[in-house]
Amino acid sequence: MSEAVVAQTPAVDDAPLAADRVRASFARQRFMQYLGAELDEVGEGVCTISCRPRPELGQQHGYVHAGAVAAIADSAAGYAALSLMPAGSEVLTVEYKLNLMAPATGDLLVARGRVLRAGRTLTVAEATVGALSEGVETPCAALLSTLMRRG
Amino acid sequence: MSEAVVAQTPAVDDAPLAADRVRASFARQRFMQYLGAELDEVGEGVCTISCRPRPELGQQHGYVHAGAVAAIADSAAGYAALSLMPAGSEVLTVEYKLNLMAPATGDLLVARGRVLRAGRTLTVAEATVGALSEGVETPCAALLSTLMRRG
Amino acid sequence: MSEAVVAQTPAVDDAPLAADRVRASFARQRFMQYLGAELDEVGEGVCTISCRPRPELGQQHGYVHAGAVAAIADSAAGYAALSLMPAGSEVLTVEYKLNLMAPATGDLLVARGRVLRAGRTLTVAEATVGALSEGVETPCAALLSTLMRRG
Amino acid sequence: MSEAVVAQTPAVDDAPLAADRVRASFARQRFMQYLGAELDEVGEGVCTISCRPRPELGQQHGYVHAGAVAAIADSAAGYAALSLMPAGSEVLTVEYKLNLMAPATGDLLVARGRVLRAGRTLTVAEATVGALSEGVETPCAALLSTLMRRG
Repeated sequence: MSEAVVAQTPAVDDAPLAADRVRASFARQRFMQYLGAELDEVGEGVCTISCRPRPELGQQHGYVHAGAVAAIADSAAGYAALSLMPAGSEVLTVEYKLNLMAPATGDLLVARGRVLRAGRTLTVAEATVGALSEGVETPCAALLSTLMRRG
Repeated sequence: MSEAVVAQTPAVDDAPLAADRVRASFARQRFMQYLGAELDEVGEGVCTISCRPRPELGQQHGYVHAGAVAAIADSAAGYAALSLMPAGSEVLTVEYKLNLMAPATGDLLVARGRVLRAGRTLTVAEATVGALSEGVETPCAALLSTLMRRG
Repeated sequence: MSEAVVAQTPAVDDAPLAADRVRASFARQRFMQYLGAELDEVGEGVCTISCRPRPELGQQHGYVHAGAVAAIADSAAGYAALSLMPAGSEVLTVEYKLNLMAPATGDLLVARGRVLRAGRTLTVAEATVGALSEGVETPCAALLSTLMRRG
Repeated sequence: MSEAVVAQTPAVDDAPLAADRVRASFARQRFMQYLGAELDEVGEGVCTISCRPRPELGQQHGYVHAGAVAAIADSAAGYAALSLMPAGSEVLTVEYKLNLMAPATGDLLVARGRVLRAGRTLTVAEATVGALSEGVETPCAALLSTLMRRG
């Protein structure tokens, strides 16, 4: 199917395609693979990415480094934004702010992104990162970011 | 030399020791090694960390992922902060904000951290990341962060 | 009742007192009065502050200036934080980040603060600001902040 | 002189006009007047705004409220950005982050804005706020912001 046809598809039918576009973009992110991050869910304006802590991702106290936490939180917010953009768009992170609230450790880190406002050029999104340990989830980071549409 | 003795060392003679403490902490950061980051310089309230772009660090357009850029910028600011803290201290990132200004690409990324204000508990620091390409450096990111002293 | 007695009051009974402390602190904020801001609600970890747009608060396009929007959002987050702190505490804003999402205009601006994580020394909180116009509310700003307990 | 003619003026001769445009925009900001803020200097990519502390601007401890500090810092960064934009442009703050480093008090608050990177659509700028007291200046706040060109 050509891009022109996709662009004419009504928004309501575009949802699965948006998810496909997010998955295709995620698959091209070598750094996500290097971290061992996985794209769990993509919906309309939401996206979940998870990552399993392992020694290579550690900082000096053995917890997952803020850079890895930031990478999955930034990506979850960015792909939540991309999910609402027209076909053919690409998303760039303009900036983000990250608060680290508790050690990033346990069995699994789960970053949940959500769009707060989708504009024509700029989108504002947030993400929270939870640390799952034996079935209990502790909020470990919060992100607030600005994304830009390109293309 | 015991920690107690180090703690009594006057601040002016403590500078080389502070650099040693920063280097020891950096060496324990598995994630810095995983990124291929190197600690170049540590001074009083300043720190420089560099990282060579390579495919594993890439995002969907082939540039270095914001998460890797953030990791070296955050660390440069954090170790600039630690360099001014008394012996026995550890440094935690409370939060940071990162603006991405140009694609992180080229031969080398250089993050330069600098303390803006060192408090008893909290330190405010900034970092800039430059992308070196054939000898020309382009500013590619700016970070403003809050660090906490522990220990 | 002396402060010492208040401090011994169990947390569960402390809620109304916490609201009283927030109201007393708000009443001492000359700038809130100068803006015409009002403290609407204080709960456990939440706080709502509103402000009516008027010409003196305007920026160059006639909307409410980001500084006034920031002031009520920062205060809503800060008092949400204070509401969970022990009696005798004071709250200081360490830093905040504010995204401006739509023009701050209409009949009333409403800032709703909420604690994301309350720590012993530091608290992370967020706030959203909505612009009410003829009964319809539009999100116009989002804030993510770090607060410090003193006293 | 018509806007079309201004737009054709070479950049090097445009500097005084850019300052005029900044001054004209500042003069339309009712909130700046309400705070008692003054536009001190405008250069190529830089801008200085000052404000004299007075009781109406106070928070609960008598220092100048973060909202007023933010307002002058945000404006200094914003007008630094506008000074580099083509004639006919308007500047909007997309977002900013503010670190409060010391009490905002004394004889005069001085906010100095500076552009870090000027893009076609987005500009990244920073500002620092110093508190002058009996001739001694103490850094009291640092801001990092994203501005958008319109028009």
